[in-house]
Amino acid sequence: MEILIATANAGKAREFREMLGDQQHAWKDLSAFPKGEEVAETGSTFRANACIKASAYARRHAMWALADDSGLEVDALGGKPGIVSARWAQIHQAGAGDAANNALLLKQLNNVPDAQRGARFVCVLALADPQGRIILTARGDVEGEILREPRGTNGFGYDPLFRVKSMGIAMAELDAARKHAISHRGSALKRLGTLLERVGGVGA
Amino acid sequence: MEILIATANAGKAREFREMLGDQQHAWKDLSAFPKGEEVAETGSTFRANACIKASAYARRHAMWALADDSGLEVDALGGKPGIVSARWAQIHQAGAGDAANNALLLKQLNNVPDAQRGARFVCVLALADPQGRIILTARGDVEGEILREPRGTNGFGYDPLFRVKSMGIAMAELDAARKHAISHRGSALKRLGTLLERVGGVGA
Repeated sequence: MEILIATANAGKAREFREMLGDQQHAWKDLSAFPKGEEVAETGSTFRANACIKASAYARRHAMWALADDSGLEVDALGGKPGIVSARWAQIHQAGAGDAANNALLLKQLNNVPDAQRGARFVCVLALADPQGRIILTARGDVEGEILREPRGTNGFGYDPLFRVKSMGIAMAELDAARKHAISHRGSALKRLGTLLERVGGVGA
Repeated sequence: MEILIATANAGKAREFREMLGDQQHAWKDLSAFPKGEEVAETGSTFRANACIKASAYARRHAMWALADDSGLEVDALGGKPGIVSARWAQIHQAGAGDAANNALLLKQLNNVPDAQRGARFVCVLALADPQGRIILTARGDVEGEILREPRGTNGFGYDPLFRVKSMGIAMAELDAARKHAISHRGSALKRLGTLLERVGGVGA
């Protein structure tokens, strides 16, 4: 079946294409359509926002749509930035974009000792049918710690500041294949893929 | 696979049992377990609350769990009572329970003309895996109008005040089998059932 990858985030779109390369379904992305109104992420959780985006784009384009909501939960910040990870610096009027977000996070954790720098990347994927009535969701996460300075140049977002616990190196030091094998988005997609294979032609 | 029906609402539990009677899965309900802490419904939509309940009960009892969030959306009340349908009278300090909810709704719509009494029952079902990582959701709805006085004695909740548009009689005038064939919960369950059949043994 044909599935729309419903993300305007270039980093996420690239990862989806990399991870989905060998799948049996036909994937379209938003670039195939005229730019529509942005979908308001009014939910208070990753899952709620992923569902809102998936069902809105599915209805808009009358096809199955896959959306992602993901972010970084930092223990020392009580789980923030969480669902506002991409806008963290903006919210604090400290610029915008990956570099500003990373700089702000480093500053916020400046006095936090090594033992208390735990964090995790979380991703929830939602796949909605063309009517937005059926939604499959899958969650993935990866545990780590926030470094004291950026390391590596791969990936996007907070990847340079995130030391993967099980590997001892920064997410941004992993090449795409190694990142996808352990990342939150990779895990969620594997779970959803298993579901999807079994569900097959529903609604198609 | 074994699935927990995660509802403390006696009316919903009965309907699930009636509708699921001939399914291939083994269904347990909450009465099989010691009464645990209630799960806080902190979401702002039916879907968010259904997911919160399904994943909380799935993790608590380490098994697949099915939860429901449903309610009545009344056009003349801007879509209320919606997610607070079961507590509508309570919220307005006008008693508690089905009779009080129905009495309050009648009062609120007292001056609303026939042409503006449109409403719908909405149900979102969520089925979560034992880790709460994978969730399947399905939505069902049924269109109708709010009557000026209760009719029928079947069902529960707002059923006596809800005239089913496609049939011209109140939901509470339908016997169980006829209600399930057209109801919001019946539609959602049929959609989820199709998915479930195909997903089969995932996580089992």
